[in-house]
Amino acid sequence: MTNRKVGLWLIGAFGGVGTTVTVGLTSLCRGLAQPIGLVTAKPLFQNLDLVEPHEWVIGGHDVRAGSFYESATGLMERSGVFGYALLQAVKNDLDQFSKNVQPGIWINESSTHTGENNHIVLCQNPKNAVAQVCEHLQTFKKVHGLDRVVVVNVASTEPIYPLDERHQSPSALLNSLTEPCLPPSSIYALAAIQSGCPYVNFTPSLGASLPALELLAQQHKVPIAGKDGKTGETLLKSALAPLFAARNLRVRSWVGHNILGGGDGRTLNSPANKESKVKSKDVQLPSILGYPLQTHVSIEYVESLDDWKTAWDHIHFEGFLGTKMTMQFTWQGCDSLLAAPLVIDLARLIDFAARKGESGIVKPLACFFKSPEGVTEHDFFKQTTELENWVRSHHPLSAR
Amino acid sequence: MTNRKVGLWLIGAFGGVGTTVTVGLTSLCRGLAQPIGLVTAKPLFQNLDLVEPHEWVIGGHDVRAGSFYESATGLMERSGVFGYALLQAVKNDLDQFSKNVQPGIWINESSTHTGENNHIVLCQNPKNAVAQVCEHLQTFKKVHGLDRVVVVNVASTEPIYPLDERHQSPSALLNSLTEPCLPPSSIYALAAIQSGCPYVNFTPSLGASLPALELLAQQHKVPIAGKDGKTGETLLKSALAPLFAARNLRVRSWVGHNILGGGDGRTLNSPANKESKVKSKDVQLPSILGYPLQTHVSIEYVESLDDWKTAWDHIHFEGFLGTKMTMQFTWQGCDSLLAAPLVIDLARLIDFAARKGESGIVKPLACFFKSPEGVTEHDFFKQTTELENWVRSHHPLSAR
Amino acid sequence: MTNRKVGLWLIGAFGGVGTTVTVGLTSLCRGLAQPIGLVTAKPLFQNLDLVEPHEWVIGGHDVRAGSFYESATGLMERSGVFGYALLQAVKNDLDQFSKNVQPGIWINESSTHTGENNHIVLCQNPKNAVAQVCEHLQTFKKVHGLDRVVVVNVASTEPIYPLDERHQSPSALLNSLTEPCLPPSSIYALAAIQSGCPYVNFTPSLGASLPALELLAQQHKVPIAGKDGKTGETLLKSALAPLFAARNLRVRSWVGHNILGGGDGRTLNSPANKESKVKSKDVQLPSILGYPLQTHVSIEYVESLDDWKTAWDHIHFEGFLGTKMTMQFTWQGCDSLLAAPLVIDLARLIDFAARKGESGIVKPLACFFKSPEGVTEHDFFKQTTELENWVRSHHPLSAR
Amino acid sequence: MTNRKVGLWLIGAFGGVGTTVTVGLTSLCRGLAQPIGLVTAKPLFQNLDLVEPHEWVIGGHDVRAGSFYESATGLMERSGVFGYALLQAVKNDLDQFSKNVQPGIWINESSTHTGENNHIVLCQNPKNAVAQVCEHLQTFKKVHGLDRVVVVNVASTEPIYPLDERHQSPSALLNSLTEPCLPPSSIYALAAIQSGCPYVNFTPSLGASLPALELLAQQHKVPIAGKDGKTGETLLKSALAPLFAARNLRVRSWVGHNILGGGDGRTLNSPANKESKVKSKDVQLPSILGYPLQTHVSIEYVESLDDWKTAWDHIHFEGFLGTKMTMQFTWQGCDSLLAAPLVIDLARLIDFAARKGESGIVKPLACFFKSPEGVTEHDFFKQTTELENWVRSHHPLSAR
Repeated sequence: MTNRKVGLWLIGAFGGVGTTVTVGLTSLCRGLAQPIGLVTAKPLFQNLDLVEPHEWVIGGHDVRAGSFYESATGLMERSGVFGYALLQAVKNDLDQFSKNVQPGIWINESSTHTGENNHIVLCQNPKNAVAQVCEHLQTFKKVHGLDRVVVVNVASTEPIYPLDERHQSPSALLNSLTEPCLPPSSIYALAAIQSGCPYVNFTPSLGASLPALELLAQQHKVPIAGKDGKTGETLLKSALAPLFAARNLRVRSWVGHNILGGGDGRTLNSPANKESKVKSKDVQLPSILGYPLQTHVSIEYVESLDDWKTAWDHIHFEGFLGTKMTMQFTWQGCDSLLAAPLVIDLARLIDFAARKGESGIVKPLACFFKSPEGVTEHDFFKQTTELENWVRSHHPLSAR
Repeated sequence: MTNRKVGLWLIGAFGGVGTTVTVGLTSLCRGLAQPIGLVTAKPLFQNLDLVEPHEWVIGGHDVRAGSFYESATGLMERSGVFGYALLQAVKNDLDQFSKNVQPGIWINESSTHTGENNHIVLCQNPKNAVAQVCEHLQTFKKVHGLDRVVVVNVASTEPIYPLDERHQSPSALLNSLTEPCLPPSSIYALAAIQSGCPYVNFTPSLGASLPALELLAQQHKVPIAGKDGKTGETLLKSALAPLFAARNLRVRSWVGHNILGGGDGRTLNSPANKESKVKSKDVQLPSILGYPLQTHVSIEYVESLDDWKTAWDHIHFEGFLGTKMTMQFTWQGCDSLLAAPLVIDLARLIDFAARKGESGIVKPLACFFKSPEGVTEHDFFKQTTELENWVRSHHPLSAR
Repeated sequence: MTNRKVGLWLIGAFGGVGTTVTVGLTSLCRGLAQPIGLVTAKPLFQNLDLVEPHEWVIGGHDVRAGSFYESATGLMERSGVFGYALLQAVKNDLDQFSKNVQPGIWINESSTHTGENNHIVLCQNPKNAVAQVCEHLQTFKKVHGLDRVVVVNVASTEPIYPLDERHQSPSALLNSLTEPCLPPSSIYALAAIQSGCPYVNFTPSLGASLPALELLAQQHKVPIAGKDGKTGETLLKSALAPLFAARNLRVRSWVGHNILGGGDGRTLNSPANKESKVKSKDVQLPSILGYPLQTHVSIEYVESLDDWKTAWDHIHFEGFLGTKMTMQFTWQGCDSLLAAPLVIDLARLIDFAARKGESGIVKPLACFFKSPEGVTEHDFFKQTTELENWVRSHHPLSAR
Repeated sequence: MTNRKVGLWLIGAFGGVGTTVTVGLTSLCRGLAQPIGLVTAKPLFQNLDLVEPHEWVIGGHDVRAGSFYESATGLMERSGVFGYALLQAVKNDLDQFSKNVQPGIWINESSTHTGENNHIVLCQNPKNAVAQVCEHLQTFKKVHGLDRVVVVNVASTEPIYPLDERHQSPSALLNSLTEPCLPPSSIYALAAIQSGCPYVNFTPSLGASLPALELLAQQHKVPIAGKDGKTGETLLKSALAPLFAARNLRVRSWVGHNILGGGDGRTLNSPANKESKVKSKDVQLPSILGYPLQTHVSIEYVESLDDWKTAWDHIHFEGFLGTKMTMQFTWQGCDSLLAAPLVIDLARLIDFAARKGESGIVKPLACFFKSPEGVTEHDFFKQTTELENWVRSHHPLSAR
């Protein structure tokens, strides 16, 4: 067993995904759970010396006061996950990690923060905010004697943020930081990159997805990955569309209707925030199928579902001699539980990329994302092959 | 335009699949249909000089008296496919091809034939029956001046046929032909192989799937392929199971309930025939997932559905921290229309294999079959990659 | 056989519903169809001497030039209904009735008519338009020697039309007719009422649903009924919600997602028109269940579906000890074919009401409508009981 | 508050249903749950002075050693119901009631009991077994000073038991009791009736459903009701089929596929036991619709589902002009939680019937049962009207 210690810094730590990542890692650490849903638990990855559960130290930011245990209890009661006995067994671990969660940064601009999100550090402008986040990261690393800190954005989806010339180069961006020029997700991303921390954007928010930050990541030798974790309905699309393509069946329309509750659902109830999400979900099909088709994606907040997302997809396709046929599916998944193991996978793999000296966008991680950066391939199986090839490029003898 | 003429000999010609193959090829020939659902219409296959619609001459066997036009009209009226105008436009072509359909062979043994299947040639034993089929094939080839005849079994599913030592070698089998030793599907397969005709078994019946016939195909330099076309629910399984595997989600149970009417459905209403089908549908999941799981496949005959098959699949899986989630799908497809383009694909590809001098089982065709012979891989996308590799091994510059 | 002849005047005659009504009545008349889907074909109604298929003479208005045969052929080709043989058999009848279809009225105001809807009579104001429609109705009645003309609105859904004090009394309304004050549907309704024609509004448009016209109908002794035929998803809601109520299961959310193509779908693609429809579909559940709950109804136009509507409903309910459970359904129905028999039912029953001297809203017809006028009961089975009681109030010995 | 105390004697007490009844009544008693899912909590029943939660004393028989708390914990862990906090709050109550559960009776005949069901009293013949059960009931009543004891069968489904002339009259049956002549469910029923205890059969087992016991119940002035609680898929059928009937839509086929785990599912895995269940589920549709149609019901044991039952129903119907349309639904319910409130309802109502002097089959309770005794009406809403009429016959002013 090594003495390695690596930090996992979660932006939006007390949300459903951040909480589940923390419950999951502590449960794995204590041998109370199996690594189901973890891609990196598969034989292929066993030679990579990825960070093990007991080697992670968890911290992060959140605009809500609270604790991992409190959030976990809420998830258990509302969504029926985890189980009482498991939470008791990891309560102490959760409480230790809760101490590492800092208030979220908040730029003092026109948009006022909502009543419940008041665990914040007010900053005058993006420049100050970046500095504040950098300080939090440095303190975390120092206090716990960490070899490295990986930053992952698991906060609520932001509205679409319009880009302009200030976002095209590092210098233009850095010169604009005294005025409003970035959404919160990108402030955290900038701070992570400047602090040399590998960065993953698991949400559809802007994060590091602008030319200025992509270039900056290369300059700072920091690997980054994003964006928007591919957990459910979109994952299925990216597996089923290749089937229709392979059989030369012509998809005429593909309608997806998503309903979900919980914090993520509530955020999406705002039309601006929903727009980011829908946009992220609706680009794949023409890309995979190779022709335009009618697609429609809708997402509605349904309070009673809590963290359970149900998607209904209706695929109308034409077979031989113009015969119209139909496939429908429903997917009933618990979003946080689908997302959390992928966050752990990504943290492990971006840390690995950092160790291997990679920087900028790590394209072989595309299979984890709805809107993979720097990659136009949306076919899940082709993306998976890229990931396998990448692993084997580093460890040629890795198991199939 | 070449002067090439190739025969397509359909066993069970007037059934739904055989009829749709014939309507389809004549419609394609007259420019009345697009090649939707034809895998070999994709760019990858364009350099292979595959047999074109106008180059096929269709014939076959059937135990029913009838005609392609009559069967096609029945399908149109009951299942709402083809359209009136299309059938009128190809009626003459259908009638020409109907003339090439010979009565089915019938061995004079204990099991008596049913009343409606009385378009038969009574044979004393398998030896006579094989000779009769060979004569039909030779006549067909000679009358139409064909370069080659491809034989495809699209007849109703037979009950499981037990194998013994007589089926292990060509000599043992050939010495047993004066007594009952083969089901009808295998008698046709034997005749095809002895006549040098490439053979495809699109059904779950025995066909050429016994050591004696596989060896004989090699000896006669005849390529063969089978068995049981992967058209609907099983196709979906072989595309979705790899997704669960890739994400390390643990499938706990996978239940598939199929309902269909039509001739195929009616045959499956007999428990013995159903057994063949269910067996063919139920082997893939443990193979792809790599662990045992509870699976259940049922098929029921529902008269009102005619040729439309509806499958409902319920997939119960465990995600992170043991959280149980569910995917369900329904598939509403018209069986004959899904099968027919694959039959055309297989006819084109097995003819190509023959031209390239391949013999015995053509394993790269596995992606077309529920129970691919000589292949243990059931993952549809890996099977597809094998097909692509095979094409490129013959034509390295083939399009992606 | 009587010498009775009754007119059926369809507003929007060449649309899917109007066309199917006409194909249906002519097919029934010629003994080519069974009265499946016709409520009034049930034993209960056999003593009422309702108008029989051969007694109807069909006419109407449409803003499209065309014919019943042309529309019917289009429906057959796109949506796979009717069948070629049936349409040939009734072609002559359809052509006779097509001659009775007049151009639609069009008020010469700011909103210009679209290019394809150019089969119109331009009118200077509502007053002229009403006069024009009255003339059409009188001519129809006179030419064919009809005992009565029943007017049914089956035209496309209009946007919501705001009401004001002009719509509160007959006199106020009649004094306003020289300026824009009514949507087209209400102009037709006013003309019907003034002409003494029983009027049915099968759409969510305004029609006769304003105090001024309801009072006018009473004054003119004209029975009216509406609005918005209950054909599919809403029908199911009104049958299933009573089940949850009867078992005291608490529905927490009910989400309905509708997709459809065809002319109706295309109209709904306009947000203003969609609003009328969604509003009509979303009022029932709290009424039946007796408590507020989260409901969501969406409708999207999916071109490839043509006249087939698919609805997916997700019902999330709480059982004993707060246990959350789920029911989902999908409904795949052909809208015109579901609507047409109900239009025939309503025409027969409102004619019956007229014969019996009823006037104003005929409330016992509530079971046919999504937004039944003058009735707060949405439980389908209670509504059906009201219909049965009404029948028995006229014919006490009617069969169960 | 009265001093009334009434016994609820559950046969199969520690099964999922019996356990949930007990958790439910104790939770209601302590104000920890709302009466959701209880029909008798509706306003209609408020004047009937039905037995309140705190007035029940629970006991019963079970062939498994165990306790309510143990069973409840198992259900919580496997099926995610109840919640940890609730079970802790009622643990003492459960433990008190567990003391009242007696071993099951077991006749010493050829069929040997299985290993895990060994909490039994061996009896030589039915006569002894009945005497033993009577003694248990008397002791229970005496020890707790109960006004009355209601007996409810919630044990596992038995195989179909063939009837003969011994089962036609009380005297014939009572004279046969020294030899094997009744399944266990009927032995309990006989003992209940002889002890003057109202009896409810919530399962498809024989119970009191034989002429001899129905007559005996009348002679002993004991009200009885059964059989097979209508909790899920069959309930939906009995609400949806009337809709198709009301609209004169012709159902061509209705296929139901049920999957479930848990104890009930495991029992049904035995073909003989499954036969009872399927038979009970398959009789309603032709009765409600009024014509024969193809129906198919299947039930499969799927271990991973535990106590959650999923039903998929596919309804294929013909609309106007022979147009085929489809409705599908899936129902995901937790069987024990659906059944338990109905058991409480039935216990309250059969006690009420006893107080009102009713005896023999209480037909107005038909809406609770899949195979209602003495009643041919299967339409849920008509059955519900019968129940309402019965209530009002006793209390004319009961609320709607």
